Amino acid sequence: MNVLPKSIRKLIEELSRLPGIGTKTASRLAFFLLKQKDGEREALSRAIAELKTALQFCQQCHNLSESLLCEICADKHRDQNLICVVEEPLDVVALEQGRSYQGTYHVLGGVISPIDGVGPRELTIDKLLERLRGLSGQAEVILATNPSLEGEGTALYLAKQLKKFPEVRITRIAHGLPIGGDIEYADELTIKKALEGRREYKPG
Amino acid sequence: MNVLPKSIRKLIEELSRLPGIGTKTASRLAFFLLKQKDGEREALSRAIAELKTALQFCQQCHNLSESLLCEICADKHRDQNLICVVEEPLDVVALEQGRSYQGTYHVLGGVISPIDGVGPRELTIDKLLERLRGLSGQAEVILATNPSLEGEGTALYLAKQLKKFPEVRITRIAHGLPIGGDIEYADELTIKKALEGRREYKPG
Repeated sequence: MNVLPKSIRKLIEELSRLPGIGTKTASRLAFFLLKQKDGEREALSRAIAELKTALQFCQQCHNLSESLLCEICADKHRDQNLICVVEEPLDVVALEQGRSYQGTYHVLGGVISPIDGVGPRELTIDKLLERLRGLSGQAEVILATNPSLEGEGTALYLAKQLKKFPEVRITRIAHGLPIGGDIEYADELTIKKALEGRREYKPG
Repeated sequence: MNVLPKSIRKLIEELSRLPGIGTKTASRLAFFLLKQKDGEREALSRAIAELKTALQFCQQCHNLSESLLCEICADKHRDQNLICVVEEPLDVVALEQGRSYQGTYHVLGGVISPIDGVGPRELTIDKLLERLRGLSGQAEVILATNPSLEGEGTALYLAKQLKKFPEVRITRIAHGLPIGGDIEYADELTIKKALEGRREYKPG
Protein backbone atom coordinates (compact mmCIF):
# COMPACT_ATOMS: atom_id res chain seq x y z
CA MET A 1 0.00 0.00 0.00
CA ASN A 2 3.07 2.25 -0.15
CA VAL A 3 1.67 3.65 -3.37
CA LEU A 4 -0.63 5.95 -1.38
CA PRO A 5 0.51 9.04 0.52
CA LYS A 6 0.98 8.66 4.29
CA SER A 7 -2.03 10.76 5.34
CA ILE A 8 -4.39 8.54 3.32
CA ARG A 9 -2.76 5.34 4.54
CA LYS A 10 -3.13 6.61 8.11
CA LEU A 11 -6.84 7.35 7.64
CA ILE A 12 -7.46 3.96 5.98
CA GLU A 13 -5.70 2.30 8.93
CA GLU A 14 -7.81 4.20 11.46
CA LEU A 15 -11.08 3.52 9.62
CA SER A 16 -10.27 -0.21 9.36
CA ARG A 17 -10.32 -0.39 13.15
CA LEU A 18 -14.07 0.28 13.14
CA PRO A 19 -16.31 -2.78 13.43
CA GLY A 20 -17.51 -4.21 10.13
CA ILE A 21 -15.14 -2.04 8.10
CA GLY A 22 -12.32 -3.81 6.26
CA THR A 23 -9.47 -2.32 4.26
CA LYS A 24 -11.50 -2.12 1.04
CA THR A 25 -14.39 -0.22 2.63
CA ALA A 26 -11.93 1.96 4.56
CA SER A 27 -10.16 2.87 1.30
CA ARG A 28 -13.46 3.71 -0.34
CA LEU A 29 -14.46 5.92 2.62
CA ALA A 30 -11.05 7.63 2.71
CA PHE A 31 -11.28 8.57 -0.97
CA PHE A 32 -14.84 9.73 -0.50
CA LEU A 33 -13.66 12.00 2.33
CA LEU A 34 -10.79 13.23 0.18
CA LYS A 35 -13.23 14.39 -2.48
CA GLN A 36 -15.50 16.14 -0.01
CA LYS A 37 -15.34 19.83 0.76
CA ASP A 38 -13.01 20.80 3.60
CA GLY A 39 -15.96 21.90 5.73
CA GLU A 40 -17.78 18.59 5.46
CA ARG A 41 -14.66 16.65 6.40
CA GLU A 42 -14.06 18.98 9.34
CA ALA A 43 -17.64 18.48 10.52
CA LEU A 44 -17.08 14.73 10.79
CA SER A 45 -13.68 15.17 12.42
CA ARG A 46 -15.17 17.56 14.98
CA ALA A 47 -18.19 15.34 15.67
CA ILE A 48 -15.81 12.50 16.57
CA ALA A 49 -13.56 14.69 18.71
CA GLU A 50 -16.48 16.26 20.57
CA LEU A 51 -18.39 13.02 21.08
CA LYS A 52 -17.96 12.99 24.82
CA THR A 53 -18.50 16.71 25.33
CA ALA A 54 -21.32 17.36 27.79
CA LEU A 55 -22.13 13.69 27.93
CA GLN A 56 -23.10 11.99 31.16
CA PHE A 57 -25.26 9.19 32.44
CA CYS A 58 -28.78 9.78 33.73
CA GLN A 59 -28.70 9.41 37.52
CA GLN A 60 -31.87 7.36 37.49
CA CYS A 61 -31.86 5.11 34.42
CA HIS A 62 -28.14 5.29 33.47
CA ASN A 63 -28.95 6.01 29.86
CA LEU A 64 -26.70 8.54 28.11
CA SER A 65 -27.92 12.03 28.85
CA GLU A 66 -27.03 15.70 28.59
CA SER A 67 -28.35 16.52 32.07
CA LEU A 68 -28.56 14.83 35.49
CA LEU A 69 -31.92 13.30 34.58
CA CYS A 70 -32.53 12.19 31.01
CA GLU A 71 -35.51 13.49 29.06
CA ILE A 72 -37.48 10.29 29.61
CA CYS A 73 -36.91 10.12 33.37
CA ALA A 74 -37.69 13.84 33.68
CA ASP A 75 -40.96 13.45 31.76
CA LYS A 76 -43.86 13.61 34.23
CA HIS A 77 -46.18 11.76 31.86
CA ARG A 78 -43.98 8.67 32.05
CA ASP A 79 -44.92 5.94 34.52
CA GLN A 80 -42.02 5.83 37.00
CA ASN A 81 -43.31 2.52 38.39
CA LEU A 82 -42.95 0.76 35.04
CA ILE A 83 -39.29 0.05 34.33
CA CYS A 84 -38.02 -1.59 31.17
CA VAL A 85 -34.54 -3.05 31.72
CA VAL A 86 -32.33 -3.01 28.60
CA GLU A 87 -28.70 -3.70 27.80
CA GLU A 88 -27.60 -0.61 25.91
CA PRO A 89 -28.71 2.95 25.07
CA LEU A 90 -29.46 1.89 21.48
CA ASP A 91 -32.09 -0.53 22.82
CA VAL A 92 -33.89 2.47 24.32
CA VAL A 93 -33.82 4.15 20.90
CA ALA A 94 -35.33 1.01 19.32
CA LEU A 95 -38.05 0.68 21.97
CA GLU A 96 -38.90 4.37 21.75
CA GLN A 97 -39.42 4.00 18.00
CA GLY A 98 -42.41 1.80 18.83
CA ARG A 99 -43.96 4.94 20.39
CA SER A 100 -46.30 2.83 22.51
CA TYR A 101 -44.26 2.50 25.70
CA GLN A 102 -45.11 5.03 28.41
CA GLY A 103 -42.87 3.81 31.21
CA THR A 104 -39.20 4.47 32.00
CA TYR A 105 -36.02 2.51 31.34
CA HIS A 106 -33.02 1.13 33.15
CA VAL A 107 -29.87 0.72 31.09
CA LEU A 108 -27.62 -2.07 32.42
CA GLY A 109 -24.58 -1.05 30.38
CA GLY A 110 -24.07 -4.57 29.03
CA VAL A 111 -24.83 -8.17 29.94
CA ILE A 112 -23.34 -10.64 32.39
CA SER A 113 -20.63 -12.38 30.39
CA PRO A 114 -17.93 -14.20 32.39
CA ILE A 115 -15.88 -14.78 29.20
CA ASP A 116 -15.58 -11.02 28.72
CA GLY A 117 -14.96 -10.48 32.43
CA VAL A 118 -18.33 -8.79 32.93
CA GLY A 119 -20.02 -9.77 36.19
CA PRO A 120 -23.19 -8.36 37.82
CA ARG A 121 -21.09 -5.71 39.55
CA GLU A 122 -19.92 -4.22 36.27
CA LEU A 123 -23.56 -3.51 35.39
CA THR A 124 -26.04 -1.09 36.97
CA ILE A 125 -27.97 -3.88 38.72
CA ASP A 126 -27.36 -2.51 42.24
CA LYS A 127 -28.68 0.83 41.05
CA LEU A 128 -31.84 -0.88 39.79
CA LEU A 129 -32.47 -2.56 43.14
CA GLU A 130 -31.85 0.77 44.89
CA ARG A 131 -34.29 2.43 42.52
CA LEU A 132 -36.97 -0.18 43.27
CA ARG A 133 -36.50 0.37 47.00
CA GLY A 134 -37.34 4.02 46.49
CA LEU A 135 -40.63 3.31 44.69
CA SER A 136 -44.03 3.28 46.35
CA GLY A 137 -47.13 1.47 45.10
CA GLN A 138 -47.35 -1.32 42.53
CA ALA A 139 -44.42 -1.59 40.15
CA GLU A 140 -43.45 -3.69 37.15
CA VAL A 141 -40.03 -4.51 35.76
CA ILE A 142 -39.95 -5.63 32.12
CA LEU A 143 -36.80 -7.63 31.39
CA ALA A 144 -35.90 -6.59 27.84
CA THR A 145 -32.39 -7.98 27.50
CA ASN A 146 -31.62 -9.57 24.13
CA PRO A 147 -32.74 -13.14 23.39
CA SER A 148 -29.09 -14.26 23.32
CA LEU A 149 -27.30 -16.64 25.69
CA GLU A 150 -25.91 -13.77 27.76
CA GLY A 151 -29.14 -11.79 27.57
CA GLU A 152 -31.18 -14.75 28.83
CA GLY A 153 -28.63 -15.41 31.58
CA THR A 154 -28.78 -11.78 32.67
CA ALA A 155 -32.60 -11.85 32.68
CA LEU A 156 -32.49 -14.98 34.84
CA TYR A 157 -30.04 -13.38 37.26
CA LEU A 158 -32.16 -10.23 37.45
CA ALA A 159 -35.34 -12.23 38.05
CA LYS A 160 -33.68 -13.95 41.00
CA GLN A 161 -32.49 -10.65 42.45
CA LEU A 162 -35.92 -9.11 42.02
CA LYS A 163 -37.55 -11.82 44.12
CA LYS A 164 -36.52 -9.64 47.09
CA PHE A 165 -39.34 -7.33 45.97
CA PRO A 166 -42.48 -9.48 46.16
CA GLU A 167 -44.68 -6.49 45.32
CA VAL A 168 -42.87 -5.94 42.01
CA ARG A 169 -44.30 -7.73 38.98
CA ILE A 170 -41.52 -9.20 36.82
CA THR A 171 -42.19 -9.70 33.11
CA ARG A 172 -40.09 -10.65 30.10
CA ILE A 173 -40.50 -9.02 26.69
CA ALA A 174 -42.25 -11.43 24.25
CA HIS A 175 -40.28 -13.60 21.85
CA GLY A 176 -41.80 -15.01 18.71
CA LEU A 177 -42.06 -14.51 14.99
CA PRO A 178 -41.23 -11.00 13.87
CA ILE A 179 -44.01 -9.14 12.04
CA GLY A 180 -43.53 -9.68 8.32
CA GLY A 181 -41.47 -12.78 9.09
CA ASP A 182 -42.03 -16.16 7.53
CA ILE A 183 -42.59 -19.33 9.59
CA GLU A 184 -40.85 -21.27 6.84
CA TYR A 185 -37.59 -19.41 7.41
CA ALA A 186 -37.73 -19.00 11.19
CA ASP A 187 -35.09 -20.82 13.27
CA GLU A 188 -36.10 -23.60 15.67
CA LEU A 189 -35.58 -21.53 18.81
CA THR A 190 -37.84 -18.75 17.56
CA ILE A 191 -40.49 -21.32 16.59
CA LYS A 192 -40.20 -22.92 20.04
CA LYS A 193 -40.51 -19.53 21.77
CA ALA A 194 -43.40 -18.53 19.52
CA LEU A 195 -45.31 -21.71 20.41
CA GLU A 196 -44.53 -21.40 24.12
CA GLY A 197 -45.67 -17.80 24.12
CA ARG A 198 -48.95 -18.46 22.29
CA ARG A 199 -51.96 -16.51 23.50
CA GLU A 200 -55.74 -16.82 23.38
CA TYR A 201 -56.96 -15.52 20.02
CA LYS A 202 -60.15 -13.48 20.18
CA PRO A 203 -61.00 -11.96 16.82
CA GLY A 204 -62.71 -8.57 16.92
CA MET B 1 -34.03 9.84 17.91
CA ASN B 2 -34.35 12.60 20.52
CA VAL B 3 -33.63 9.96 23.14
CA LEU B 4 -29.91 10.26 22.43
CA PRO B 5 -27.72 13.20 23.48
CA LYS B 6 -26.96 15.82 20.88
CA SER B 7 -23.27 14.96 20.41
CA ILE B 8 -24.11 11.34 19.53
CA ARG B 9 -26.96 12.37 17.23
CA LYS B 10 -24.58 14.77 15.48
CA LEU B 11 -21.97 12.04 14.97
CA ILE B 12 -24.57 9.56 13.71
CA GLU B 13 -25.78 12.21 11.26
CA GLU B 14 -22.25 12.90 10.00
CA LEU B 15 -21.40 9.19 9.66
CA SER B 16 -24.64 8.51 7.75
CA ARG B 17 -23.40 10.86 5.01
CA LEU B 18 -20.65 8.38 4.14
CA PRO B 19 -21.37 6.06 1.20
CA GLY B 20 -22.83 2.69 2.13
CA ILE B 21 -23.43 3.71 5.74
CA GLY B 22 -27.05 4.01 6.84
CA THR B 23 -28.45 5.19 10.16
CA LYS B 24 -28.20 1.73 11.78
CA THR B 25 -24.53 1.27 10.89
CA ALA B 26 -23.79 4.89 11.82
CA SER B 27 -25.36 4.32 15.27
CA ARG B 28 -23.32 1.17 15.78
CA LEU B 29 -20.12 2.98 14.79
CA ALA B 30 -20.93 5.96 17.02
CA PHE B 31 -21.43 3.72 20.06
CA PHE B 32 -18.26 1.82 19.23
CA LEU B 33 -16.37 5.13 19.15
CA LEU B 34 -18.00 6.17 22.42
CA LYS B 35 -16.63 3.06 24.12
CA GLN B 36 -13.14 3.55 22.74
CA LYS B 37 -10.35 5.22 24.65
CA ASP B 38 -10.07 8.98 24.16
CA GLY B 39 -6.73 8.58 22.37
CA GLU B 40 -8.08 6.16 19.77
CA ARG B 41 -11.02 8.39 18.98
CA GLU B 42 -8.70 11.39 18.68
CA ALA B 43 -6.45 9.46 16.29
CA LEU B 44 -9.37 8.94 13.91
CA SER B 45 -10.54 12.53 14.28
CA ARG B 46 -7.03 13.80 13.54
CA ALA B 47 -6.53 11.46 10.58
CA ILE B 48 -9.69 12.89 8.99
CA ALA B 49 -8.73 16.50 9.73
CA GLU B 50 -5.18 16.07 8.43
CA LEU B 51 -6.13 14.10 5.34
CA LYS B 52 -5.08 16.79 2.92
CA THR B 53 -1.91 17.81 4.73
CA ALA B 54 1.14 17.54 2.48
CA LEU B 55 -0.96 15.99 -0.24
CA GLN B 56 -0.42 16.84 -3.90
CA PHE B 57 -0.68 15.30 -7.32
CA CYS B 58 2.29 13.77 -9.06
CA GLN B 59 3.33 16.11 -11.89
CA GLN B 60 3.77 13.22 -14.29
CA CYS B 61 1.07 10.63 -13.58
CA HIS B 62 -1.38 12.76 -11.51
CA ASN B 63 -1.65 10.11 -8.84
CA LEU B 64 -1.81 11.35 -5.25
CA SER B 65 1.69 11.95 -3.98
CA GLU B 66 3.69 13.50 -1.18
CA SER B 67 6.26 14.98 -3.52
CA LEU B 68 6.39 16.51 -7.00
CA LEU B 69 7.03 13.09 -8.53
CA CYS B 70 5.33 10.05 -6.99
CA GLU B 71 7.38 7.06 -5.87
CA ILE B 72 6.49 5.08 -8.98
CA CYS B 73 7.34 7.82 -11.49
CA ALA B 74 10.57 8.54 -9.60
CA ASP B 75 11.58 4.86 -9.70
CA LYS B 76 14.31 4.38 -12.31
CA HIS B 77 13.54 0.68 -12.66
CA ARG B 78 10.08 1.48 -13.98
CA ASP B 79 9.55 1.56 -17.73
CA GLN B 80 8.61 5.18 -18.51
CA ASN B 81 7.47 4.15 -22.00
CA LEU B 82 4.82 1.79 -20.68
CA ILE B 83 1.85 3.77 -19.33
CA CYS B 84 -1.18 2.20 -17.74
CA VAL B 85 -4.13 4.62 -17.82
CA VAL B 86 -6.52 4.23 -14.87
CA GLU B 87 -9.48 6.14 -13.49
CA GLU B 88 -8.59 6.61 -9.81
CA PRO B 89 -5.64 6.33 -7.40
CA LEU B 90 -7.21 3.21 -5.84
CA ASP B 91 -6.90 1.48 -9.22
CA VAL B 92 -3.13 2.00 -9.00
CA VAL B 93 -3.16 0.37 -5.55
CA ALA B 94 -5.06 -2.62 -6.97
CA LEU B 95 -2.75 -2.99 -9.96
CA GLU B 96 0.35 -2.66 -7.78
CA GLN B 97 -0.91 -5.52 -5.62
CA GLY B 98 -0.40 -7.78 -8.62
CA ARG B 99 3.33 -6.98 -8.28
CA SER B 100 3.96 -7.93 -11.89
CA TYR B 101 3.60 -4.55 -13.58
CA GLN B 102 6.86 -2.70 -14.15
CA GLY B 103 5.63 0.32 -16.08
CA THR B 104 4.19 3.64 -14.92
CA TYR B 105 0.62 4.94 -14.56
CA HIS B 106 -1.54 7.82 -15.62
CA VAL B 107 -4.47 8.68 -13.35
CA LEU B 108 -7.34 10.30 -15.24
CA GLY B 109 -9.15 11.47 -12.12
CA GLY B 110 -12.46 9.94 -13.20
CA VAL B 111 -14.29 8.93 -16.38
CA ILE B 112 -16.10 10.81 -19.09
CA SER B 113 -19.67 10.98 -17.88
CA PRO B 114 -21.91 13.65 -19.44
CA ILE B 115 -24.67 12.94 -16.88
CA ASP B 116 -22.33 13.96 -14.06
CA GLY B 117 -21.01 16.90 -16.09
CA VAL B 118 -17.59 15.30 -16.57
CA GLY B 119 -16.14 15.87 -20.03
CA PRO B 120 -12.65 15.04 -21.38
CA ARG B 121 -11.42 18.45 -20.17
CA GLU B 122 -12.18 17.63 -16.54
CA LEU B 123 -9.79 14.67 -16.77
CA THR B 124 -6.00 14.61 -17.22
CA ILE B 125 -6.25 13.52 -20.86
CA ASP B 126 -4.41 16.59 -22.20
CA LYS B 127 -1.61 15.86 -19.74
CA LEU B 128 -1.38 12.30 -21.06
CA LEU B 129 -1.04 13.50 -24.66
CA GLU B 130 1.59 16.01 -23.57
CA ARG B 131 3.42 13.24 -21.73
CA LEU B 132 3.42 11.04 -24.85
CA ARG B 133 4.81 13.90 -26.93
CA GLY B 134 7.79 14.02 -24.57
CA LEU B 135 8.60 10.31 -24.93
CA SER B 136 11.22 8.91 -27.27
CA GLY B 137 11.33 5.37 -28.65
CA GLN B 138 8.59 2.75 -28.70
CA ALA B 139 5.82 3.29 -26.20
CA GLU B 140 2.67 1.44 -25.12
CA VAL B 141 -0.47 2.80 -23.47
CA ILE B 142 -2.60 0.22 -21.63
CA LEU B 143 -6.18 1.43 -21.28
CA ALA B 144 -7.24 0.13 -17.87
CA THR B 145 -10.44 2.04 -17.25
CA ASN B 146 -13.22 -0.01 -15.64
CA PRO B 147 -15.36 -2.33 -17.79
CA SER B 148 -18.39 -0.10 -17.16
CA LEU B 149 -20.37 1.98 -19.64
CA GLU B 150 -18.41 5.13 -18.77
CA GLY B 151 -15.12 3.28 -18.54
CA GLU B 152 -15.58 1.76 -22.01
CA GLY B 153 -16.61 5.13 -23.40
CA THR B 154 -13.54 6.78 -21.94
CA ALA B 155 -11.29 4.02 -23.33
CA LEU B 156 -12.86 4.55 -26.78
CA TYR B 157 -12.33 8.32 -26.56
CA LEU B 158 -8.72 7.84 -25.46
CA ALA B 159 -8.04 5.36 -28.26
CA LYS B 160 -9.26 7.92 -30.80
CA GLN B 161 -7.08 10.65 -29.30
CA LEU B 162 -4.06 8.35 -29.24
CA LYS B 163 -4.31 7.73 -32.98
CA LYS B 164 -2.31 10.98 -33.30
CA PHE B 165 0.63 8.93 -32.07
CA PRO B 166 1.06 6.16 -34.68
CA GLU B 167 4.25 4.93 -32.96
CA VAL B 168 2.39 4.28 -29.71
CA ARG B 169 0.89 0.82 -29.24
CA ILE B 170 -2.58 1.03 -27.69
CA THR B 171 -3.83 -1.96 -25.68
CA ARG B 172 -6.84 -2.63 -23.46
CA ILE B 173 -6.61 -4.60 -20.22
CA ALA B 174 -8.11 -8.10 -20.68
CA HIS B 175 -11.69 -8.85 -19.69
CA GLY B 176 -12.87 -12.34 -18.91
CA LEU B 177 -13.67 -14.74 -16.14
CA PRO B 178 -12.02 -13.80 -12.84
CA ILE B 179 -9.65 -16.40 -11.38
CA GLY B 180 -11.61 -18.57 -8.95
CA GLY B 181 -14.82 -17.50 -10.69
CA ASP B 182 -17.46 -19.90 -11.93
CA ILE B 183 -18.67 -19.92 -15.55
CA GLU B 184 -22.09 -20.99 -14.27
CA TYR B 185 -22.51 -17.74 -12.35
CA ALA B 186 -20.80 -15.36 -14.77
CA ASP B 187 -22.95 -12.69 -16.43
CA GLU B 188 -23.53 -12.73 -20.21
CA LEU B 189 -21.27 -9.77 -20.90
CA THR B 190 -18.33 -11.36 -19.09
CA ILE B 191 -18.94 -14.62 -20.95
CA LYS B 192 -19.05 -12.69 -24.24
CA LYS B 193 -15.81 -10.83 -23.43
CA ALA B 194 -14.14 -14.04 -22.24
CA LEU B 195 -14.98 -15.77 -25.53
CA GLU B 196 -13.95 -12.79 -27.65
CA GLY B 197 -10.66 -12.55 -25.79
CA ARG B 198 -9.80 -16.26 -26.10
CA ARG B 199 -6.16 -17.06 -26.77
CA GLU B 200 -4.17 -19.93 -28.19
CA TYR B 201 -3.67 -22.54 -25.49
CA LYS B 202 -0.22 -24.13 -25.41
CA PRO B 203 0.20 -26.42 -22.44
CA GLY B 204 3.63 -26.82 -20.88
